[in-house]
Amino acid sequence: MSSTPESNPLLLCFEDEQDSAERIAQAGGLNLAVIERHHFPDGELKLRLPDSLPCRVAILRTLSEPNEKLVELLLAAQTARELGAHHLTLIAPYLAYMRQDIAFHPGEAISQRIVGRFLASLFNAVITVDPHLHRVATLQEAVPVPQAMVLSGAYLLSDLIASRRQKPMLVGPDEESAQWIALAAARHGFDHAVCRKVRHGDRAVDVALPDISIVGRQVVLLDDVASTGHTVARAATLLLAAGAASVDVAVTHALFAGDALEVMHKAHVGEVWSTDCISHASNAVSMAEPLAQALAQITATA
Amino acid sequence: MSSTPESNPLLLCFEDEQDSAERIAQAGGLNLAVIERHHFPDGELKLRLPDSLPCRVAILRTLSEPNEKLVELLLAAQTARELGAHHLTLIAPYLAYMRQDIAFHPGEAISQRIVGRFLASLFNAVITVDPHLHRVATLQEAVPVPQAMVLSGAYLLSDLIASRRQKPMLVGPDEESAQWIALAAARHGFDHAVCRKVRHGDRAVDVALPDISIVGRQVVLLDDVASTGHTVARAATLLLAAGAASVDVAVTHALFAGDALEVMHKAHVGEVWSTDCISHASNAVSMAEPLAQALAQITATA
Repeated sequence: MSSTPESNPLLLCFEDEQDSAERIAQAGGLNLAVIERHHFPDGELKLRLPDSLPCRVAILRTLSEPNEKLVELLLAAQTARELGAHHLTLIAPYLAYMRQDIAFHPGEAISQRIVGRFLASLFNAVITVDPHLHRVATLQEAVPVPQAMVLSGAYLLSDLIASRRQKPMLVGPDEESAQWIALAAARHGFDHAVCRKVRHGDRAVDVALPDISIVGRQVVLLDDVASTGHTVARAATLLLAAGAASVDVAVTHALFAGDALEVMHKAHVGEVWSTDCISHASNAVSMAEPLAQALAQITATA
Repeated sequence: MSSTPESNPLLLCFEDEQDSAERIAQAGGLNLAVIERHHFPDGELKLRLPDSLPCRVAILRTLSEPNEKLVELLLAAQTARELGAHHLTLIAPYLAYMRQDIAFHPGEAISQRIVGRFLASLFNAVITVDPHLHRVATLQEAVPVPQAMVLSGAYLLSDLIASRRQKPMLVGPDEESAQWIALAAARHGFDHAVCRKVRHGDRAVDVALPDISIVGRQVVLLDDVASTGHTVARAATLLLAAGAASVDVAVTHALFAGDALEVMHKAHVGEVWSTDCISHASNAVSMAEPLAQALAQITATA
């Protein structure tokens, strides 16, 4: 990067993400400011940004529990424009509403497309990590911004696994995890395979193990996200029954809704590792460095 | 109205407002459908609308606790367009974010303007009741839609007060309530007056009673909304100390954040009456009829 500090964007964050923001600001040599947020008793929000802004501004907001945060982004982005920002980047390490990409039943809101367009109406650029894209090939199909950059947590998780386990075998809990398994395995030449989802009847979903020997292996289940933990827990149970020496879990997004961690531990999962895309006790690697690099690239080409 | 039933808009609502929606549908002879809403464990919403929609659609959503509801409206309105709706009316008996109409400090989000533009990007028309507009004169300055209609709860509350109290005196808890006091008083020729807010130092705000005799009078404090209840409670205490026989409260919007009702009852407020703009135990009059009439007018001129 040939950009001088003066051309660096200002990074804005909310108080609950100040730790992640400080790591990104540190990694990128960025100035950081916290958006003041007040919750009125009636549920309305008041936001206050720094009173004058440089031309280029990035807002960090990871979109777990997304609804209120989408309103915050509406208010913050429009206010940033009024205060002088011409080029606005959203850094959303976790991007919400990426799964509902078609109407599974007539009349359903295709929320990926609607939320994607909404974000594109607010920002010039979006940076995210391992978005859950299925039927669309690129992030820009879902979020039609001029500049979009997709990072993966698989590399840093792969490095972590290499430092913690002997000749680990990476296993994906379902077919959809194949893309992350491939990235993580290639980095260190790990053995790898993916499970298949097997449907019994209308609702019941089971996991079928891959057709390879796992006896005595240190298995790591790796995926982009574990939400309820049920698929991962089922896979862990089957892997241990099939002779795995240990089963750990590595995910980019520690979404872990409800009792997900408990569900996994009951299935005798050992360690649970995640990136800091969503702040959580399981965070074991930080995406600050690649996020700061992505922002520098976006800024250099803006 | 010369509109035939076929040209009537379809009214859509969410399950938690189905009672209000049924009253409006009944009053306007409208077909009604409930938008199915599912909350995923990770906080995302799934909405499902009827799978084909007529040209004209109205969505009822009162915007108390507004943030998640704004996301619902984004998803519902865009989906309604995809399903065939050409003319979309928002019926928001309570409209949120109307108070922050300037930046009180540099850098503050002017949320009225931002949320107003957001709603205007989704809807062709907006119908609301007693929006809290101060420094802007018309709803369309705040919500720049092609068609906007503002109703008042003051008339029906005035009728209710006339049926419940003998020669009541209407008192507004502060200067801002003067517009609603004037409407309600004119309807039945009630005596009326407004209190003044008096500031002591930076933060402390007190209420000064109007300079008229209230000894032995049945006073009704009337306003558009009572949020924390503190101003109304303070006015009630002073009115009773000054000799009022009773003090009741009538508000359009039963917003009542936190312990507002308790605060008012501790100040010896008698009855609390509200319209059904926000569903609440204190609802004593229904805005269904005027809302249905407004929608018919909007539809006739669309």
